[in-house]
Amino acid sequence: MKFDPNSLNIVPFVSVDHMMKIVLQIGVEKMLKGIAEYVEDDFKRWELFDKTPRVPSHSEKGVIELMPTSDGEVYGFKYVNGHPANTKEGLQTVTAFGMLADVETGYPVLLSEMTILTALRTAATSAVAAKHLAAKNAKVMAMIGNGAQSEFQALAFKTILGIEEVRLYDIDPAATEKCARNLAGRGLNVVSCTSSQEALEGAQIVTTCTADKQYATILTDNMVGSGLHINAIGGDCPGKTELHKDILLRSGIFVEYTPQTRIEGEIQQLDDDYPVTELWEVITGQKEGRTSDGQITLFDGVGFAVEDFSALRYLRDHYKETGFYEDLDMIADPDDPRDLFGMVQRAKTPEQAAS
Amino acid sequence: MKFDPNSLNIVPFVSVDHMMKIVLQIGVEKMLKGIAEYVEDDFKRWELFDKTPRVPSHSEKGVIELMPTSDGEVYGFKYVNGHPANTKEGLQTVTAFGMLADVETGYPVLLSEMTILTALRTAATSAVAAKHLAAKNAKVMAMIGNGAQSEFQALAFKTILGIEEVRLYDIDPAATEKCARNLAGRGLNVVSCTSSQEALEGAQIVTTCTADKQYATILTDNMVGSGLHINAIGGDCPGKTELHKDILLRSGIFVEYTPQTRIEGEIQQLDDDYPVTELWEVITGQKEGRTSDGQITLFDGVGFAVEDFSALRYLRDHYKETGFYEDLDMIADPDDPRDLFGMVQRAKTPEQAAS
Repeated sequence: MKFDPNSLNIVPFVSVDHMMKIVLQIGVEKMLKGIAEYVEDDFKRWELFDKTPRVPSHSEKGVIELMPTSDGEVYGFKYVNGHPANTKEGLQTVTAFGMLADVETGYPVLLSEMTILTALRTAATSAVAAKHLAAKNAKVMAMIGNGAQSEFQALAFKTILGIEEVRLYDIDPAATEKCARNLAGRGLNVVSCTSSQEALEGAQIVTTCTADKQYATILTDNMVGSGLHINAIGGDCPGKTELHKDILLRSGIFVEYTPQTRIEGEIQQLDDDYPVTELWEVITGQKEGRTSDGQITLFDGVGFAVEDFSALRYLRDHYKETGFYEDLDMIADPDDPRDLFGMVQRAKTPEQAAS
Repeated sequence: MKFDPNSLNIVPFVSVDHMMKIVLQIGVEKMLKGIAEYVEDDFKRWELFDKTPRVPSHSEKGVIELMPTSDGEVYGFKYVNGHPANTKEGLQTVTAFGMLADVETGYPVLLSEMTILTALRTAATSAVAAKHLAAKNAKVMAMIGNGAQSEFQALAFKTILGIEEVRLYDIDPAATEKCARNLAGRGLNVVSCTSSQEALEGAQIVTTCTADKQYATILTDNMVGSGLHINAIGGDCPGKTELHKDILLRSGIFVEYTPQTRIEGEIQQLDDDYPVTELWEVITGQKEGRTSDGQITLFDGVGFAVEDFSALRYLRDHYKETGFYEDLDMIADPDDPRDLFGMVQRAKTPEQAAS
């Protein structure tokens, strides 16, 4: 990566406001599709990445995590929290920001809000998984949990898989109403349901994305018919699952990064050596995905650092053309690298110099 | 921590330019002293901290690291790189930024440049260690390595320990000249030397802070006289040490966080069970520091996350009164936390809304 000597101190920053404008300018479906391509590309070169389970700091109220990764040329990390009780205080359950840096110099090259970007990459990753795992020609998706992630999931599955109908259910009807309203006029047949059972009628795919931190049972065994693809997004930290264990035992299970999913995913309910397949192995053709029309496939998605990396790469390749970013003076850049102290002294304001 | 509902999206940011102005407004010595107090306070409650060795991503050219920690109420982390060859390209060897967040909500509360702040906290920590380990009434310090860290070390030792004379040596005379120039008129007797031996004459303390990534021998055994305190700062990553092993074997060795120092410090030259004392144990009085006037004491400093946390806490308590900060729109804050999608849609510019 080449550095402009006149702007060594500058790191481009995409604020929340700019990210919203970027999404709107590019178009949410086009951006989901673009990020999905970057995710799929990075999963294809999975073995190249420096992978580590996220680095968590747990408290009673939630968790704060750092998710670093590197492909040897570019380094990326995300800061993200998960605080289920936040919504009661009018705060987001999940907020995030992240950055990319040049491995050769260690200099940051992009800083960005990642609450919105995470919503996009999560939906894009789900759709990539379903593309490789769900029944061919799936047209109907049930969506259990109609919170902040739901519209992004619906549109990702529409644009990447060709889903035509989404069937919404949430224990809070207001959430379903909000989701239906946001999806109106976007080319999807949106059906609001009053139970999970009803939502599942005729669906080839079910997405579960609920937020409570507990061992919940959003889906029970009898609700899961043959051939279903389950896109399980909400079970993503220790003590938080959405599916009854019996469903897992009947399913082909696919994960992002096994060591992390054993801790955070639905499979925390299973033995540590229960066989699972990593998604990248399916995408590269090294392992089989769906083995029969009747098989139940489960994508036990918890979100992995490589996906954030992909989303940040997409952003890095596109933010400039939108014009929606600002320059942050973030890196100390003395004329003589050994003279940090002198640089500070020379920064005196006229008042400080006179005193 | 209470949040203002009108500014949930805002994270205060201290840029490089603002950090320089803050240092100048507060005064570098006063700031070093203040940070040293925060460091000492945090070392006193060491056991409370969530500690983990830094999370590194190594490459041929250097390392990028994340250094997280938490005291249960506040969470902090630092991004930092170490690229020894960077100076050849006119880049900093080390650049850094960091943040604090509220553990209860996971929301970031401060983002800051940390290249300058790291220089300050490194010097402050060294002085805190020397205060507890060096001979009483030490007045003369040798400084081997006169790069970016040297002036901060000299002033920290002046203001916190009462050092009156610094004796400078660097293999590059231009570095010594720069350091002497920067320290002129600051109440220190500055002596430029042409060899390490000369620098050590009459010194009760020696600070080594050189930057080459290699097993170097900045100090050899015969140079180290009885009663000396060695403040070894430059040996701070695998494969980078400054002292001959024989010196270690003659010294009482003090470290920040043993698991990290075994990997990164001078003691990487010793067996994994070689006895060392953690500095916090000395500060809290649980273990002895210097045991005799003739003992050689060695602070094998590599820099630990808690020190960055202390420096960020100091900054958090002081940036506002200086006025040198800006507001970053970093956290997505929809009126309804479940309606992230709707928030994005409502951000349309007039042009986007019309199209």
